[in-house]
Amino acid sequence: MKALVYNGPGKKALEERPKPEVKDAGDAVVRVLKTTICGTDLHILKGDVPTCTPGRILGHEGVGVIDSVGAGVTAFKPGDHVLVSCISACGRCDYCRRGMYSHCRTGGWILGNEIDGTQAEFVRIPHADTSLYPIPEGADEEALVMLSDILPTGFECGVLNGKVAPGSTVAIVGSGPIGLAALLTAQFYSPAQIIMLDLDENRLQVAKRFGATHTINASGEAAAEQVKALTGGMGVDTAIEAVGVPATFITCQDIVAPGGVIANVGVHGVKVDLHLERLWSQNISITTRLVDTVTTPMLLKTVGAQRIDPKLLITHHFKLDQILDAYDTFGRAAETQALKVIIEA
Amino acid sequence: MKALVYNGPGKKALEERPKPEVKDAGDAVVRVLKTTICGTDLHILKGDVPTCTPGRILGHEGVGVIDSVGAGVTAFKPGDHVLVSCISACGRCDYCRRGMYSHCRTGGWILGNEIDGTQAEFVRIPHADTSLYPIPEGADEEALVMLSDILPTGFECGVLNGKVAPGSTVAIVGSGPIGLAALLTAQFYSPAQIIMLDLDENRLQVAKRFGATHTINASGEAAAEQVKALTGGMGVDTAIEAVGVPATFITCQDIVAPGGVIANVGVHGVKVDLHLERLWSQNISITTRLVDTVTTPMLLKTVGAQRIDPKLLITHHFKLDQILDAYDTFGRAAETQALKVIIEA
Repeated sequence: MKALVYNGPGKKALEERPKPEVKDAGDAVVRVLKTTICGTDLHILKGDVPTCTPGRILGHEGVGVIDSVGAGVTAFKPGDHVLVSCISACGRCDYCRRGMYSHCRTGGWILGNEIDGTQAEFVRIPHADTSLYPIPEGADEEALVMLSDILPTGFECGVLNGKVAPGSTVAIVGSGPIGLAALLTAQFYSPAQIIMLDLDENRLQVAKRFGATHTINASGEAAAEQVKALTGGMGVDTAIEAVGVPATFITCQDIVAPGGVIANVGVHGVKVDLHLERLWSQNISITTRLVDTVTTPMLLKTVGAQRIDPKLLITHHFKLDQILDAYDTFGRAAETQALKVIIEA
Repeated sequence: MKALVYNGPGKKALEERPKPEVKDAGDAVVRVLKTTICGTDLHILKGDVPTCTPGRILGHEGVGVIDSVGAGVTAFKPGDHVLVSCISACGRCDYCRRGMYSHCRTGGWILGNEIDGTQAEFVRIPHADTSLYPIPEGADEEALVMLSDILPTGFECGVLNGKVAPGSTVAIVGSGPIGLAALLTAQFYSPAQIIMLDLDENRLQVAKRFGATHTINASGEAAAEQVKALTGGMGVDTAIEAVGVPATFITCQDIVAPGGVIANVGVHGVKVDLHLERLWSQNISITTRLVDTVTTPMLLKTVGAQRIDPKLLITHHFKLDQILDAYDTFGRAAETQALKVIIEA
C-alpha cells in the first residue's frame, strides 16, 4: 500500500509499504477513506518529537472502513464506517478510568508517532473498541475528520479547561485551525465576547465569519492593550493560547482578568517566563492538556444536530498520491490560506 | 495609642499615634486584644510592597473588642468580641458577589497595607459587617488569631485550589507557618500521603507532629527524586508551593503527576521559569490566589468542633511594648524555631 513515511528531520516520502495486519486481539485494521495533516505532523518533520522515529508512517486523524478485526473486538465488524480518534485508549488502566485517555498506559497519542498512522491506505488501530467511533448513518464523513483531533483539542484543552461560560469574555490567541476549532466550540456556551488575535489578516477574517465578536491584528503589548480596552480595562475571563510559542503565552498573562483562566492548547518547544511576581495574587489558573477525546461522542451529537459545522475548517482537497503537495500547501498556510486539507486515500 | 509603624525599607518603630475614629458609616473601631506578625510584614519591611507607604501602621491579623461603630453597622455593637479578617470586603461589588473578596473594589488586602493595621491598641475596620466575624462563646481567642490570614490562606490557596481529595497524594514545598497551615487543613480531606519538604530539620519535625506522612530534607532535583520514589514514580496529585521563590516553584513542576495541580501559595517577587515544553501535554493546572477568606466561617466551625487546633502554630508570646523583640524573634525563625508569635495589646 502507499503511505507517507517520516524519514528523519526534514525528510518524508510517499512509499510502498506492506498492508498492516491484526496483531493483538483488540486490534482493527481500517481502510482509510480520508485523512488530513496536523500542525503536529510539521513538528515531527522538524525533529521536535523524539518519540517519533524515522520509518514511521505519519497521521493521527481520519475516517475509514473496518477491514478486519481481532478476536477481542466486539463493537465493530468489517464494513463498518468509523472515525479514528487521535488518542488510543485501552479503557482499563488507571488513567483511562479517570477519563485521562491521553495518558493511557498502553495508548495515548501513539498513532503516527510511536506506531504507524493514518496517512496511508490502511492503518492498524489498537484498542479498537475504545479508540474508534461508529459514524452515524447519513453523516458527512469528510466533516468528521475534524473530530479525530482538532475539534476535541480546541474544545477540551481550550473551551472546557478555560471554563468558557454564558456572558463571559474569551480571547483566543492564534487564529489557525486549532484556534478556530476553539472559536467554533466556544460558542456552545454563549460567551459575551470572543476576541481573536493573530498576525494574519486572512485568518482574522475567517475568524470573523466563524463568529468572533472582535479581531485584533497585533502582537505584544499593543495587543494586550486592545484586549483590555475591549473588556473595560479588566482583561478576559478565558485566555486560550493556540500557538505554542513564548510570546503568545506572555500575551495570555497580560490579558487574563483576576479570577480568570489561561488554557494552553499550543505545543511548546521551549520554556516560558511565568510572571508570578504579578500573578501570585490574581486568583488565576493555568491549564495544560493533551486532548483526552472524552468529548468525541458529545461532539458527534453536536454535528448531527447541526450546532456546529466542522466543514468550515476544510479549505483544500488532495488524493493520497498528491500528499506531498498537500504538505506543501498546508506548510505554506500564510500564502495558500490553507486551514485543514483533506486527503482521500 | 501605641502602634508599630513602617517608616520605609528596613525601618520600623513603636510610636505614639492618635486613636482611630469611625470615618464611614460601615466602619468599626476595634480595641485589639491580640495580633501577630506575618511573613508579608517582613516583605513590606524589605520594601517589596509598594502599596504600603512609610507612616503606615502594620498588621492584618488579630482579635479584639468592638469599641465603636458607624451608623451603617448592623451586625456588631460595642463590647462584642470579633475576629478581624485580613481581607476587607464590601460584600456588594462584582468581585465580592463572586466570592472573590480578595479583589473587592473598595477593600481586599488593605489592612496594614493601604490603611492602618492591627499592630496597635486600636484599629479602624472598614466594611465591618462583612470583614469581622463574631467570636463564638467560650472560644480560645488566641487560637482564632490564626484564622485572620494563615489558616484560610493555607486552606483556600493550597488545599482547595490544590483539589486535595481522599486517597490523593500531596506534597507541600515549604514547612513554615503557611505550609504547616496547609498541612493541618489538608487533613480535612483524608489524603493518602502528605509529604513535607523543607531545608530546616526542626520545621520538618514539627510537620511530622502535625500529621505529615513523610518529610524530605533536601533541595532541587534530589528532593524531586525522593518524592517520585515515595509515589511509585508518579509524582503527586497536589503540589503546594508555600515559599515564594523560583527554586521551590521548579520543584513543584518536577513533582506534579500527570493530571495534577500546582497550587501556589507563596508571595513571589520575581518571575519563574515555566517548563511548558514538558508540561504542555501533562494535563496539569497551576493556580494562584490571594486568600478570599470565604472559608472563615467554615474554619471557625472546624475549630469549634475540634477538627483542627490552630494553637499548634503559636510558639512565642509578647506584649505590644515588646513588639520589636517579637519581630526579631519571628525574623530569625531558623534560630528561634518561631512559627507564629502572639502579641498582646
